[in-house]
Amino acid sequence: MISDFATFDARFPLGAGAGSDAIHRNPVYSYAVTQLKDDGGHTGTGLAFTLGQGNELVCRAAAFYAEQLKGHDIEELMADFGSTFQRLSNEQQFRWLGPHKGVVHLALASVTNACYDLWAKKRGVPLWKLLTDLSPEAVLNTLDLSYLEDVLNREQALRLLQACHGSAHTRSGILQQGYPGYDTSIGWFNYTDEQVRENTRRAVGEGFTAMKLKVGAADPLRDIRRAHLVREAAGEGVKVMLDANQQWTLPQALEICEQLKGMQPYWIEEPTHPDDVLAHQTLAAAIAPLRLALGEHVPNRVVFKNYLQTGCAGFIQVDAVRVGGVSEFITISLLCRQYGVPVVPHVGDMGQLHQHLVLYNHIALDHPALFLEHIPHLQPHFVYPAQVAGGIYRTPLEPGSSCDLKMYARS
Amino acid sequence: MISDFATFDARFPLGAGAGSDAIHRNPVYSYAVTQLKDDGGHTGTGLAFTLGQGNELVCRAAAFYAEQLKGHDIEELMADFGSTFQRLSNEQQFRWLGPHKGVVHLALASVTNACYDLWAKKRGVPLWKLLTDLSPEAVLNTLDLSYLEDVLNREQALRLLQACHGSAHTRSGILQQGYPGYDTSIGWFNYTDEQVRENTRRAVGEGFTAMKLKVGAADPLRDIRRAHLVREAAGEGVKVMLDANQQWTLPQALEICEQLKGMQPYWIEEPTHPDDVLAHQTLAAAIAPLRLALGEHVPNRVVFKNYLQTGCAGFIQVDAVRVGGVSEFITISLLCRQYGVPVVPHVGDMGQLHQHLVLYNHIALDHPALFLEHIPHLQPHFVYPAQVAGGIYRTPLEPGSSCDLKMYARS
Repeated sequence: MISDFATFDARFPLGAGAGSDAIHRNPVYSYAVTQLKDDGGHTGTGLAFTLGQGNELVCRAAAFYAEQLKGHDIEELMADFGSTFQRLSNEQQFRWLGPHKGVVHLALASVTNACYDLWAKKRGVPLWKLLTDLSPEAVLNTLDLSYLEDVLNREQALRLLQACHGSAHTRSGILQQGYPGYDTSIGWFNYTDEQVRENTRRAVGEGFTAMKLKVGAADPLRDIRRAHLVREAAGEGVKVMLDANQQWTLPQALEICEQLKGMQPYWIEEPTHPDDVLAHQTLAAAIAPLRLALGEHVPNRVVFKNYLQTGCAGFIQVDAVRVGGVSEFITISLLCRQYGVPVVPHVGDMGQLHQHLVLYNHIALDHPALFLEHIPHLQPHFVYPAQVAGGIYRTPLEPGSSCDLKMYARS
Repeated sequence: MISDFATFDARFPLGAGAGSDAIHRNPVYSYAVTQLKDDGGHTGTGLAFTLGQGNELVCRAAAFYAEQLKGHDIEELMADFGSTFQRLSNEQQFRWLGPHKGVVHLALASVTNACYDLWAKKRGVPLWKLLTDLSPEAVLNTLDLSYLEDVLNREQALRLLQACHGSAHTRSGILQQGYPGYDTSIGWFNYTDEQVRENTRRAVGEGFTAMKLKVGAADPLRDIRRAHLVREAAGEGVKVMLDANQQWTLPQALEICEQLKGMQPYWIEEPTHPDDVLAHQTLAAAIAPLRLALGEHVPNRVVFKNYLQTGCAGFIQVDAVRVGGVSEFITISLLCRQYGVPVVPHVGDMGQLHQHLVLYNHIALDHPALFLEHIPHLQPHFVYPAQVAGGIYRTPLEPGSSCDLKMYARS
């Protein structure tokens, strides 16, 4: 039984230039941490990720949700978590502050993720194993499909889960091989050209075959120069992604993407405002076959549904610490499977949580195992940091979701 | 010069059933209040509206924005408020918590509205007069049009403002006539049939020619029964609006709206999730010529742009205490003018602020003077409560935006 909880406001200033992009010039990587404690001695840790200021608001909102879980048994909760998620996310007074977006939804992510962590720890297995061992019916019961009825009702969702389930064992080889990573830290916005060039060479040397550069400069020539610089240093065989972090207007994006085509980017990420579904639709049509990656700032399954309905997303970058946690992440992954769009999560939590979820998506939902973003800055703070070697995430084996921070770990 | 500020968490429990709808069964009407104090002795009061829990989060976020206005002169700020708005709403660490939605954007509304109130008080005029007296260029300088460039750039916006400006004097008769109101308090969700019938007759007796009923019951027959009950009590000449408060799924909405057509509703409001642009598009096409009203929970100009682009909105219910305050309200009203869609604001703040803004919209932007929602429950708490008689809002004449609460007013 969940007997108590705590929240923590953890902030980690980064080194010079690290984490910077066209919009966020000086981020402080931060976690709004929820710990759920049960009377069996287990502690479930859930994270939401922010850039510093306001992290305390997420912690306070998380306490509001966590309070409502006291007295519940985690197995009982997870047997019907879809209902719990629906109830919490529609708690009527908090709902006004969203609905299903912003501070309250980040807070729900933190609490939801703590539930999944506690569940896996109590069963003594890594989260990916818990999830992949669930029956299609049991998975369905953890999901809230409301407002998706026009494209994915419960019956369709169950059929889809069942259809993938039969062949799951054929995809479990990924556990031994490890999941490919891509390196985002070669090309932070504030890094000099020389740093970017060196980082690119280092990443290739370490075995990465995909990497990302931040673009969105006031002067497009800077973007074009640096994109070609990365291409040159990485070689033709490496996938290079370009990330504008919402910086462009639609007219700018239309013009600049055309100019960036020459260096053959694998995708263009977050070209403009994350709420602007129709701008992405226009842009995607104009730059095809070059594809868009989006979703890092998309708050919930309803907006993702609209993005998928327009067909503008080449890759969906749902983040389990921005949408309402693991539950809604899986809902959106299922929706993407329905539309045949690959999921390449945004990694606000440094891959700790998402390394489990991409294994689930590949094995149980038959998503392609593309690659998972890798950002190493906060690894030293975790009890079980993600292990990435040769550009590959090694499958985590510790019980839970690998989100315990050393500073709050119980001895 | 703005020398200090304060925020207040003001909550007002309502009487039995008042304020209830299909989603929000037990709201506590609340304001996150920002007061900006200048060294000339003026106090600018801005409100955001919530339903209780979490109001303190909005207050804390408002303090973050208000702090950044200290030391600025209000006239200097408002001469280029578009830039200030853009800077505040993109403050990089807070932006992660949105962007432009949820708790942080509600907080920005509160602070922005305090700026407009202070500006009008310092000039000694009601807000509607300050706004209608501004030149098109001066209005444009208060707006942030970023992410609208594909449909309304600065040049287009200026031309539109100028085009309406010439004929503004021909619409100033509204000031003497007063702005029509409509009564939402006849049909709260928890009211009995008998209460609804009595309230309807009372409203008609008071002179209201438009009123609203809350629908979205688990049993659609309840909705249909009550809708016909209001029609019968109100008579054929009265406009009756039906408000589902997001309760329906798209398949439900398609079916129920068809059944509700018989009582000739003037609009169907918030049929489903406020993020679901494409569901509204599908529904609007299916039920035409019956029209949709939407926007109460739409957080910013970018999402409104998408709604307008799809052509699904018959009426736009932007709320100046949910979007980023008066500035973004005017931006969205301008966008609506461009698309020829009328603005009928949601009245979270009981009409105190919006009575000014609809006068501005009619006189300066040449929007039709349809009617403004009227909800009387919190009127006794205001220093200058909105005066509604014979179903008509009397034009407010006190300096400012009429948002001072008695409990925080300086003697």
